[in-house]
Amino acid sequence: MSSKSSKETSIDKSIETSQESRVQINHVSDSMTLLLYLGLLIVTILTVWLFKHRRFRFIHETGLAILYGLIVGVIIRYGSPSYQPSITMISIEDSPEQSNKLPPEKVLVNMSVLNESQIYEYDYKRRLYGNDINAPILDEKATFNPEVFFNFILPPIIFFAGFSMKRKHFFRNIGSILMLAFLGTTISCFVIGGVTFGISRASARLASIVSLSECLLFGAFISATDPVTILAIFSDLRVEPDLYALVFGESVLNDAVAIVLSESIETYGSAAAAGETAAISVLKAIGSFAGVFLGAIGIGCLLGCLTALITKFTQVREHPLLETSLFVLMSYSTFLAAEAVKSTGIVAVLFCGICQAHYTYNNLSDESKATTMSFFGLLNFLAENFTFVYIGVSVFTYSSHLWDPVFIVAGFLAMIIGRVLCVYPLCSLANIGRRRSGCAIGLTRMHVLAFSGLRGAMAFALAIRNTSSDARKIIFSTTLILVMITVLVCGGLTTQMLQWMHIEVGVDEEPNRQRLDRQDSTGEAASQPSLRDRSCIALGWRKIDKNFVKPLLTNARPLLTETCSGCCLPLARLLTTTEQLTQAAVQRDLYSGGQEDTDVIVPPDSDSFAGLGEGGQVNKAGPAAPASLQVATTGDADNNGAASPVLF
Amino acid sequence: MSSKSSKETSIDKSIETSQESRVQINHVSDSMTLLLYLGLLIVTILTVWLFKHRRFRFIHETGLAILYGLIVGVIIRYGSPSYQPSITMISIEDSPEQSNKLPPEKVLVNMSVLNESQIYEYDYKRRLYGNDINAPILDEKATFNPEVFFNFILPPIIFFAGFSMKRKHFFRNIGSILMLAFLGTTISCFVIGGVTFGISRASARLASIVSLSECLLFGAFISATDPVTILAIFSDLRVEPDLYALVFGESVLNDAVAIVLSESIETYGSAAAAGETAAISVLKAIGSFAGVFLGAIGIGCLLGCLTALITKFTQVREHPLLETSLFVLMSYSTFLAAEAVKSTGIVAVLFCGICQAHYTYNNLSDESKATTMSFFGLLNFLAENFTFVYIGVSVFTYSSHLWDPVFIVAGFLAMIIGRVLCVYPLCSLANIGRRRSGCAIGLTRMHVLAFSGLRGAMAFALAIRNTSSDARKIIFSTTLILVMITVLVCGGLTTQMLQWMHIEVGVDEEPNRQRLDRQDSTGEAASQPSLRDRSCIALGWRKIDKNFVKPLLTNARPLLTETCSGCCLPLARLLTTTEQLTQAAVQRDLYSGGQEDTDVIVPPDSDSFAGLGEGGQVNKAGPAAPASLQVATTGDADNNGAASPVLF
Repeated sequence: MSSKSSKETSIDKSIETSQESRVQINHVSDSMTLLLYLGLLIVTILTVWLFKHRRFRFIHETGLAILYGLIVGVIIRYGSPSYQPSITMISIEDSPEQSNKLPPEKVLVNMSVLNESQIYEYDYKRRLYGNDINAPILDEKATFNPEVFFNFILPPIIFFAGFSMKRKHFFRNIGSILMLAFLGTTISCFVIGGVTFGISRASARLASIVSLSECLLFGAFISATDPVTILAIFSDLRVEPDLYALVFGESVLNDAVAIVLSESIETYGSAAAAGETAAISVLKAIGSFAGVFLGAIGIGCLLGCLTALITKFTQVREHPLLETSLFVLMSYSTFLAAEAVKSTGIVAVLFCGICQAHYTYNNLSDESKATTMSFFGLLNFLAENFTFVYIGVSVFTYSSHLWDPVFIVAGFLAMIIGRVLCVYPLCSLANIGRRRSGCAIGLTRMHVLAFSGLRGAMAFALAIRNTSSDARKIIFSTTLILVMITVLVCGGLTTQMLQWMHIEVGVDEEPNRQRLDRQDSTGEAASQPSLRDRSCIALGWRKIDKNFVKPLLTNARPLLTETCSGCCLPLARLLTTTEQLTQAAVQRDLYSGGQEDTDVIVPPDSDSFAGLGEGGQVNKAGPAAPASLQVATTGDADNNGAASPVLF
Repeated sequence: MSSKSSKETSIDKSIETSQESRVQINHVSDSMTLLLYLGLLIVTILTVWLFKHRRFRFIHETGLAILYGLIVGVIIRYGSPSYQPSITMISIEDSPEQSNKLPPEKVLVNMSVLNESQIYEYDYKRRLYGNDINAPILDEKATFNPEVFFNFILPPIIFFAGFSMKRKHFFRNIGSILMLAFLGTTISCFVIGGVTFGISRASARLASIVSLSECLLFGAFISATDPVTILAIFSDLRVEPDLYALVFGESVLNDAVAIVLSESIETYGSAAAAGETAAISVLKAIGSFAGVFLGAIGIGCLLGCLTALITKFTQVREHPLLETSLFVLMSYSTFLAAEAVKSTGIVAVLFCGICQAHYTYNNLSDESKATTMSFFGLLNFLAENFTFVYIGVSVFTYSSHLWDPVFIVAGFLAMIIGRVLCVYPLCSLANIGRRRSGCAIGLTRMHVLAFSGLRGAMAFALAIRNTSSDARKIIFSTTLILVMITVLVCGGLTTQMLQWMHIEVGVDEEPNRQRLDRQDSTGEAASQPSLRDRSCIALGWRKIDKNFVKPLLTNARPLLTETCSGCCLPLARLLTTTEQLTQAAVQRDLYSGGQEDTDVIVPPDSDSFAGLGEGGQVNKAGPAAPASLQVATTGDADNNGAASPVLF
């Protein structure tokens, strides 16, 4: 580079200074925005504490977060001065190459600054519509890039859902859960899409904006029911564990289904737009659904198991900080890896969470066990509350709103119809199988299940991701309204609802542990009717898991050398650690029955760090105690026959 | 809004789709970038474990992180295909209003897209220089907005430094530390600025680019020595605590001084540019320095004490998750509050950390104590390692580099001269006072102190913040080189250096606790020469802190009702909690002497979560034990006279 003239240097300096002040202004306003959200969270937490302290239950913390957000949103919208950036308007003459293309991602503007011609780079932001031009910077107020939600806020929530899942009750109800999640979400999506499309034809304006595939997209967004609010309430009240498992399982998995469904609908939309026949478009959409879903599950399980292998075969547990960091990084990598290959990170991270809890957690040092649990618990709590505060604030500050009363009413009706058509028929279907095991889902439980279909973070995150067209704006605004209504109304009435329906509350959350203790002292087992897995796939998998996967990935017994035979034996020996051999001996002395599926004791209770709370036995056990003593052995027919009966 | 023509709707759809794919592409590339950094961190952690396992000490984890970063940087730079965005070049005819102004922040481009004229918003990115135009998107590869460092990566590091500080040794050496931090950093800044300015006059090219105030800015950036690497090594080797305290105190505080100094220099620069006289400019700079520094300390202490008050007077400790969230949010709010009022968040968060450890920590439930410590420990570890990985990667991927060999050599020489002129004279000065207490800093310790002046995260973060002009680019590139040299060379040779200098290593990190035990059993106290605070300000403050501030903010004794008298008594009664009254009784039974300044037992040791490690007594003590048993009572002449002697 040649040396510059003094004039050029002086321009340089001016730009340096202006860059400095630009950075400064942005920095101050970013800090203010973040501070605002933190302040809101602090106020929410203090109010939540006060309500808990005074046993006031009519509003839940998520509802509270939304309300506070709304209030502050109004203040920001109408109370704070707008910062007006300097704007220059440019027209490009019609050039034939440009006319047929979309707007470029960057424009390089050659302009005269301080009387010298220079080139500046500008980045594409958005298209301005007629009414935007007067307020082109409104959306800069207290908003974040929607990608922040997908990349940083949702993953900890979903991961923690998988990580802290009560796997015992989940897997006991796996059939009904899968049916509700897959079939139910699909039904809900198409019913909502169909109803809103039908109603929106009545309005000439809506008919010109919203197409069928957009209505279906809206259906997919709004079919994602939210686990946060409802489970926090269920957990507070200690609702019967099988109803809990159904609500949990459905709401967690249908988030995943809704994401993949919405991507499939977009695939269908672009295939249809590309002029392909309907049949091929549908096939493509189904293919995309299966591919994305299976890919995400594969990535999640693969990286989860890889973490288990690393923690088993290295001595990294000697350094708990390294071990925990590894655990956190591997878990978040799962999300990113899935996103990077255009699969779905949320689904991947959910299954990664399940694997981490089922395998890796058992290999960790006691210190890392406590730390991972409290770390993810804290992250989850903050992320959840941030989301609801943000939902509240964005009602007023987001500039991409387009409120359409017809569509809102249509969406509301469609949501109710979709929920009813999803829950009642599918539960009745599930009861065909469940009745044989004497655990059918009663009508009151169906009511509760239908009522529990709150919409929350996932629906919001899906809708905010793209608000570039009018149709997307209408979808986003309607989703926001529905989220608020369900969280505030249903969330506030859940306690009453449970009372009206005479649902059992105050159920002991850790019956297994007590049972285990009782069993140890009195030897009574299988005094109540045993409950087997209903599906033979689940039974087969449990056997493989117990005999091969767990011994491979953790230090649990039976040893691979006991379950493998023939030519696999040398390999089995190689994959069995010294620790495993020693530990197995200890365990054999303690239990005569086989060691089964273990559950991390994690009541997803907002009051304590999942298991660190009153019980706290997970972490306070001495370092010398074998891992099997720090986790509760879960209900299996073989040695834990005294499982709590399924109540419906 | 009126209904649209079908043509407009079709344009809408195209834009929606293009927005969709634009979001998709950006999302995949962001995910890849993040995944890359996470992968690098995972590899670093595994290598660190391997090195620790094999007791290999020639390279430290931060050096390793840089090296891995460099390797991957090369691969990204030369191996990965560039994504070429669509670009349109526009020229604006000379309009008289524009010519005298700086480039606008936004341009609205009216262009014909799909044969219809529309308006699009574009955001200012940067000025392109001659050689940039061919590679205008290179900086999109694997880089983040520098603000991410300031807002999210540095705060946890600095907060944890304050939070985990060994306050006993720190305050014992406070005089020397303050001198080194304030006077030393200022000397270093001006020496480095002067030397680089002098040498750069020899090069005609440099002379035209770099001014004196920019050289001083460079001096301020590079005067920030880094605590991370050196303290990790010191901690591993358990170096004598007073040398540790000196290195720690200097490197933590001089980060703060360097930030404020660099802002003052910019204030001076803009005052001088505005045509004010030199005297006024200097006065403005000094005023800015004092204002920013005191403001930041005030905000930090205020919010830290507010947290203490909230945790003392509410029963939020019944809900540890809420309590911990509150703690985390309040701490981070400190940073943002300071930034929002244009003070310095880093300084605020450092002092907030000190207050949180000194006051709030004592009010927390046991569960929250464990969680906050492990949470911040983990965050700190991840942030540190991320920074060094990023430093390595950005050598090759950052597009704003301008390598100038003369300036690099000048910077290197100036850094050494500055360090020498800062450490040796100031230590000699400090020895005048220290010699009287028989704890002068010997020559070998001065060598170690001078050698410990590694540059790291803070220097990098300050330099990367603004790289808009050529001078700033040269400064950034040089800083990067110096950071790498010091971390790799000095970091790698520290162990040898300590051996050559015969510095005592393997010193027990918690002599107090043992002393306390001994004292309890044998009653021996004050058998060694007692060591009093040297400064009367410190003595006075200790008295106020002990009698008024601690009883007000925590549940410690003496009670305010005991230390206050007269008309303050009703207020004192109001500010004393029931818990405090009960706890005080328990404490009185345990100790006959006064309870003094307490230290959270936190070896800032990368192997364990500060105190959760082998010792672990902080968290494993039962909930019924009084707080004073869970923290080590620190060296005070009254009851802990047997403090370890200061060795130099």
